[in-house]
Amino acid sequence: MEKLPSLSSLFRIFALGALLAVCVSAHAQTDPLPSWNEGAAKKAIVDFVQATTTQGSPQFVPPAERIATFDQDGTLWVEHPIYTQVMYVLERVPALVRAKPELAKVAPYSTVLELLKGDRAAMEKLTEADLFKLLAATSTGMSVEVFQAEAKKWLAEARHPRWKKPYTDLTYLPMQEVLKYLRANGYRTYIVTGGGQDFVRVYAEATYGIPPEQVVGTAGGTTYGYAKDGKPFLTKDPKLLLNNNNAGKPEGIHLMIGRRPYAAFGNSTGDRQMLEYTKAGDGARIAMLVLHDDAKREYAYGPASGLPATKVGALTQALYDEAKKKGWTVISMKDDWKKIFAFE
Amino acid sequence: MEKLPSLSSLFRIFALGALLAVCVSAHAQTDPLPSWNEGAAKKAIVDFVQATTTQGSPQFVPPAERIATFDQDGTLWVEHPIYTQVMYVLERVPALVRAKPELAKVAPYSTVLELLKGDRAAMEKLTEADLFKLLAATSTGMSVEVFQAEAKKWLAEARHPRWKKPYTDLTYLPMQEVLKYLRANGYRTYIVTGGGQDFVRVYAEATYGIPPEQVVGTAGGTTYGYAKDGKPFLTKDPKLLLNNNNAGKPEGIHLMIGRRPYAAFGNSTGDRQMLEYTKAGDGARIAMLVLHDDAKREYAYGPASGLPATKVGALTQALYDEAKKKGWTVISMKDDWKKIFAFE
Repeated sequence: MEKLPSLSSLFRIFALGALLAVCVSAHAQTDPLPSWNEGAAKKAIVDFVQATTTQGSPQFVPPAERIATFDQDGTLWVEHPIYTQVMYVLERVPALVRAKPELAKVAPYSTVLELLKGDRAAMEKLTEADLFKLLAATSTGMSVEVFQAEAKKWLAEARHPRWKKPYTDLTYLPMQEVLKYLRANGYRTYIVTGGGQDFVRVYAEATYGIPPEQVVGTAGGTTYGYAKDGKPFLTKDPKLLLNNNNAGKPEGIHLMIGRRPYAAFGNSTGDRQMLEYTKAGDGARIAMLVLHDDAKREYAYGPASGLPATKVGALTQALYDEAKKKGWTVISMKDDWKKIFAFE
Repeated sequence: MEKLPSLSSLFRIFALGALLAVCVSAHAQTDPLPSWNEGAAKKAIVDFVQATTTQGSPQFVPPAERIATFDQDGTLWVEHPIYTQVMYVLERVPALVRAKPELAKVAPYSTVLELLKGDRAAMEKLTEADLFKLLAATSTGMSVEVFQAEAKKWLAEARHPRWKKPYTDLTYLPMQEVLKYLRANGYRTYIVTGGGQDFVRVYAEATYGIPPEQVVGTAGGTTYGYAKDGKPFLTKDPKLLLNNNNAGKPEGIHLMIGRRPYAAFGNSTGDRQMLEYTKAGDGARIAMLVLHDDAKREYAYGPASGLPATKVGALTQALYDEAKKKGWTVISMKDDWKKIFAFE
């Protein structure tokens, strides 16, 4: 009678099977960046991940230190013709005017009403100071929860003028793949945006898989107080705490994260200091710039397009030159991205 | 000849073995809070974890939302006779005076020199404004990296006057167990301290297993600039961005985390609003207060000790009464903690 296999040999058989399964799955592993064409940009990302996450690599980064930061507007999703949050602010103006009809004849409210009636030239009249005024009027003075509910409702209903789709559908598929690829390799992915922190937090988790605590943005203060029933709540204040643009980006990263990123992605002059700060760290670091050079599938603006920089998301010639000089990687939407949107 | 077991039965045998191993380990599972005596405080923590992490529980909290916040001074480690960071600031004054000898005769520097010579009464002369002035003089104006190196060096050398041990050894073992127990159950643990965010971040990871991005504290601004070699760096500014005490705690939690905690631990009036804000959320929430009532093993101060509230970490009678009224749990160091320090 043949001997039955011992318990230890049973375990050995099972272990062998498990190992085999792992090997098969590793070989069948699909390209982590399928929407990217082969090229310098894709290679830079893959090389970076391998160098920083392979045990024994001289550039290995311990998991706790793996931080990657992403600008949002123009880097993770469409920013033309008008930043999404600016659209939100503008489209809240009619409700403001209904509540206070005297505002209808006062700038900048009157300018916004003209703009919403279709006078696109009116947009040029709005200064940055006007936008801050409108932001304060539409996005502060209410509780954090009321603001979140209003923004959520608007995001569900609003449509982008060109694609007639929700703004949250207009994220770049290749960048969504980078977010997932980095997270699968132990990186924590942060949004570091000039946009409002509270606004972006409303949809970042569903849209990018990025939780509220990993959204660093321009932030106003809040004031703690009590409702009539004694329940405490936070009111959004018009007081600016963190202007998370330009030098404000590395300053915001220090305040909110306290570690220097290993990878940073941007697309405009507002991202320059974040990219410099990231790249100035020791070891392997990548700084990447999305170049909007695809007029057909998205938009073309900035230097490489041959078009003048616009008010929205300008990648200036100076920043483009700095990128080339400092070994940052420029991502050409036209050449590096097979697909731009998931819905294509 | 007896048939060999089929592959599927081999797997079944293995699965059974694995299940058995899991059951044995569950039964052998050790108490997650071994330094706690059985009682209402320990029960409140264990009940909370079970209610919020057991699938199917009506109070189940999705892992992404599991946030727990901890005050530091007096809650996670000793705060008497003087806050650790205040000791740091005071002990940096002699170096300041060596660099600028004219300061030796000017208050508050002269007061600090008296204090360091052993005149304990001099401490009473220092106002909060003095402390802010000393903080600015000793902890701003240098790069973030220089500050971190100086604080790290001091922490390695400084000793607590009573135990003659490094301050980082004076954490409460029962609270370390709570941190680990919550993390093992999917909670992210945050320090939310009135102390300096940059100071606490220097040692929080090694001391509590809490990474820099999960330290919310009183924070000053930084300024981005360039060294002579063109390398960018951040300089610590004397400008206060976030006074993370009292109402500043829920405001800081909103700024830095963007979610309401499910559990909060504190010990003084500076924690009141954080505990209220936490407890006011839906579902199962715990708010707990550490009561310093063990004069022998640590210190006794605050109402239950029969002693007057002190300048440092005062749990006032009003807060103690609010805790009792609102269903917060008071932790008695004397009765609830079997051991206070790991070195006992």
